[in-house]
Amino acid sequence: MKHFMNAKESLVTEAIDGTLRTAGGRLARLDGYPHIKVVVRTDWDKSKVALVSGGGSGHEPSHAGFVGQGMLTAAVCGEVFASPSVDAVLAGILAVTGAAGCLLIVKNYTGDRLNFGLAAERAREQGLKVSMVIVDDDVALPDLPQARGVAGTLFVHKIAGALAEQGADLDTVTDAAKNVIERVVSIGMSLDTCTIPGSPKEDRIGEGKAELGLGIHGEAGIEQVNFSSARDAMEMVVDRLANRAGPGPFVALLNNLGSVTPLEMGVLAEELIRSRLGEQIRWLIGPAPMMTSLDMQGFSVSLYAPSKADEQALVTPVAPWVWPGCLSVGDVAVEALPDGLTPIKPIPSENHETRAFIEKCCTILIEAEAELNALDAKSGDGDTGSTLATAGRALIDSLDRLPLADQTQLYRAIGLELSQTMGGSSGVLLAIFFSAAGDASATGSDSNAALKTALDRVQQVGGAKLGDRTMIDALGPALDALGQGVAAAAKAARDGADATANITRARAGRASYLSEESLAGHNDPGAEAVAILFEKISR
Amino acid sequence: MKHFMNAKESLVTEAIDGTLRTAGGRLARLDGYPHIKVVVRTDWDKSKVALVSGGGSGHEPSHAGFVGQGMLTAAVCGEVFASPSVDAVLAGILAVTGAAGCLLIVKNYTGDRLNFGLAAERAREQGLKVSMVIVDDDVALPDLPQARGVAGTLFVHKIAGALAEQGADLDTVTDAAKNVIERVVSIGMSLDTCTIPGSPKEDRIGEGKAELGLGIHGEAGIEQVNFSSARDAMEMVVDRLANRAGPGPFVALLNNLGSVTPLEMGVLAEELIRSRLGEQIRWLIGPAPMMTSLDMQGFSVSLYAPSKADEQALVTPVAPWVWPGCLSVGDVAVEALPDGLTPIKPIPSENHETRAFIEKCCTILIEAEAELNALDAKSGDGDTGSTLATAGRALIDSLDRLPLADQTQLYRAIGLELSQTMGGSSGVLLAIFFSAAGDASATGSDSNAALKTALDRVQQVGGAKLGDRTMIDALGPALDALGQGVAAAAKAARDGADATANITRARAGRASYLSEESLAGHNDPGAEAVAILFEKISR
Repeated sequence: MKHFMNAKESLVTEAIDGTLRTAGGRLARLDGYPHIKVVVRTDWDKSKVALVSGGGSGHEPSHAGFVGQGMLTAAVCGEVFASPSVDAVLAGILAVTGAAGCLLIVKNYTGDRLNFGLAAERAREQGLKVSMVIVDDDVALPDLPQARGVAGTLFVHKIAGALAEQGADLDTVTDAAKNVIERVVSIGMSLDTCTIPGSPKEDRIGEGKAELGLGIHGEAGIEQVNFSSARDAMEMVVDRLANRAGPGPFVALLNNLGSVTPLEMGVLAEELIRSRLGEQIRWLIGPAPMMTSLDMQGFSVSLYAPSKADEQALVTPVAPWVWPGCLSVGDVAVEALPDGLTPIKPIPSENHETRAFIEKCCTILIEAEAELNALDAKSGDGDTGSTLATAGRALIDSLDRLPLADQTQLYRAIGLELSQTMGGSSGVLLAIFFSAAGDASATGSDSNAALKTALDRVQQVGGAKLGDRTMIDALGPALDALGQGVAAAAKAARDGADATANITRARAGRASYLSEESLAGHNDPGAEAVAILFEKISR
Repeated sequence: MKHFMNAKESLVTEAIDGTLRTAGGRLARLDGYPHIKVVVRTDWDKSKVALVSGGGSGHEPSHAGFVGQGMLTAAVCGEVFASPSVDAVLAGILAVTGAAGCLLIVKNYTGDRLNFGLAAERAREQGLKVSMVIVDDDVALPDLPQARGVAGTLFVHKIAGALAEQGADLDTVTDAAKNVIERVVSIGMSLDTCTIPGSPKEDRIGEGKAELGLGIHGEAGIEQVNFSSARDAMEMVVDRLANRAGPGPFVALLNNLGSVTPLEMGVLAEELIRSRLGEQIRWLIGPAPMMTSLDMQGFSVSLYAPSKADEQALVTPVAPWVWPGCLSVGDVAVEALPDGLTPIKPIPSENHETRAFIEKCCTILIEAEAELNALDAKSGDGDTGSTLATAGRALIDSLDRLPLADQTQLYRAIGLELSQTMGGSSGVLLAIFFSAAGDASATGSDSNAALKTALDRVQQVGGAKLGDRTMIDALGPALDALGQGVAAAAKAARDGADATANITRARAGRASYLSEESLAGHNDPGAEAVAILFEKISR
């Protein structure tokens, strides 16, 4: 397993520094590397209750990512999955705590409890008011003696954070935190284990299996379950939560444990809201990575039934941009498809001259089918002739439906016909050509100018330039010469087509993937088709 | 490979719906599922230039995540890594385009160019002003005929988005977009391939290797390189960019291609800013997932040298919360460690009675070493006696340094001594006990009350309650009875300790991991130590 790091020992410190580089001066770290890794707010005057959290690293953006106005005042970071030392926690407390005191928000792991607990004592010895709450929101086991603290911790950060920001006193903030902890429940599910940097990956969860009720430190889930779909997965999670969540309505927090793609997280959000608890879920935080477990391919759901005051606290904006906000849940808003998607059928009209001209062009291409296929077979899959002939036949069949007497509408109608009958990129490009010619014609261009504008559009969309060994090498010169008559255009097309035999480095289209040897000496079949067309028209 | 989805066919539509659930009514989708998957702003009156982007899915949060005030007006989503149809693009254009027109922002892939291009023609046929730009920021190969569009596209969304929001006309917005495209450069690197939902994982990149210059659709990188560290990786990326980026100063966009952990992305940010281009990088967007390639374990860096107007456009706030903002880059702010980390050495003082009492207690524990170890061996690792005896010896050795005449300071000093000499959780918990006793004593509690407060604190931090088979089962009753004299306390401690032999379901501490059989009939060694201590003191 590979990781973008330099050394295990410097992973956390370098990551913190990288984050602080763009904090715009609103965050700093204490000068205690490598042992003391504490991120603190700099826009902080100690007049309000400070919130200090932390624990092992590997849960980013928790906790340093949530330091900022409205959430944490300081985050004390340990090494990956290891509790920070008593000294580190004490440093964090002392750095941000003033007369208003501070609240320590600790997830229920022995190391964190003890180290934060002893640091709290040390701080109290120095006369500071320090309270501590322990988050134990994991409901993986109904009778777990010590339920773990997982993503539900974010509710504490946010609600206590909003109160502290408003100037509430330490008792009020602590009581609010305890109140959240009493009622918040979480459970996680994962399809794979996380990879600890510098350690080999554990291959614990087999094909078709998932782990339910896992922690955030790579420890095994409470049980392995069969995994079949996002819906089943969410149902299992919802079952566990429903037993323990009490009455709603709820705020749900949908946490990405690491490497679930946003697409899948979107599906899980949809399944959560469509689940039997969905009606009770009024607000959603996420889906987003908030309390991760390195690169774990899993998610967790936390539920909390907020009071009116909690609601207010949850929706208050905060400085940390990684906080996804607490958004109200609603139906999917669906708008009717716009008018104009179905192309308006042109009104057929007659023009014998135009009819004859189109028939002639199409016949030329139909007759050239074998010759063009043979040429294409030398440098491609040998279907250029057939593609054009098919289009030609379809166009002849459509003549009675075409608005032959209206040049603008005719161009557009041919474009539409080609887009529906002619496959491949060339079909789309020719459709664009005629559609754009109609467009130009509608704004008053004469036929010649309209075709040139159309070719420009094709070049813009298709990306091919003159000399790239495409049909443009014949069509471009032909249109340029068309003002001097069809014969001049035919000569220009022929010269252009023949020149493609010397272009051995194709820069666009399928031929750009071919070797020089397979291209040298053969005209590009698209350019050749244009040359044949103009030559035969001019006769 | 497992994915949180229900079926490949419904992955994208369900994910979009999940996302729209919490859009607070500001986003909707068109009623064209499953073929037409278009997300549009609902807070949109068509009075300004609309921005429409999109392409294959699998790049989330691009593109639907960036629909909202200040960025895109509509996102047209294809299936995973597949271009949306002409009809889908046309629906998107028609749904949001008014008299001001619309700009299509297209990444340089043939399918997207053709389908967006033809849809643009169709929209023009209906009288709409539509312009289209093609983003080709990938500099993987110096002479790639068709450079791909990758994460640099975000610069176009943001800068054109800000202009459109301000009411600029279509030509101005289009020119600004073209100006960005001319100068923005990007390159990516990955340690592993992405996993396409429903397809087996390709195992292309070996141990010790990385791919440089890859696209965002799982296609192979331009070259495989040796991978050794984040620093080397970033150096290679910076080398490629430096050749092509022109003069700075730059905004850098650091994009997570999928499953790189935030820790590693932090390290990469640090390496980017410490690289030879770092001095030229004034602003950073990210690190964050912006243009992902499913779960690819890679990153990309895009560089753009903004004009003054671009700067303004880049920092303007937008509605989509997944946009990480454009933040100025600076040094890591470092604050000095706070005072008070080094414990103040207590001023030694003498009190013969206290000295004798401490000596007596310590001696009792030292003498009980073998007996307690033997008891512990029956249900643990047999070191309770030694741990306590070691602490006892250390405390006796420290007597001359202790403030024996000052109860508050003495408690604190004992707490400090124990935290430094006694290992394990029990050392921390006893340190907390004495420190908290000092705390309570400082606020006027008598010795008995101070010890009770201290025990409460230990319970809060350690999480053990009466009956959990810990030393608390003896210490709690003993302190409760202490008011009636030491003999009563000793009796209570003995009764409590003996009762632990019947507690076969430990709920805290190491014994909670042991079977009932290994616990039944044996006193908890910690509780036994407390009982012995009180009994021998009372004699």
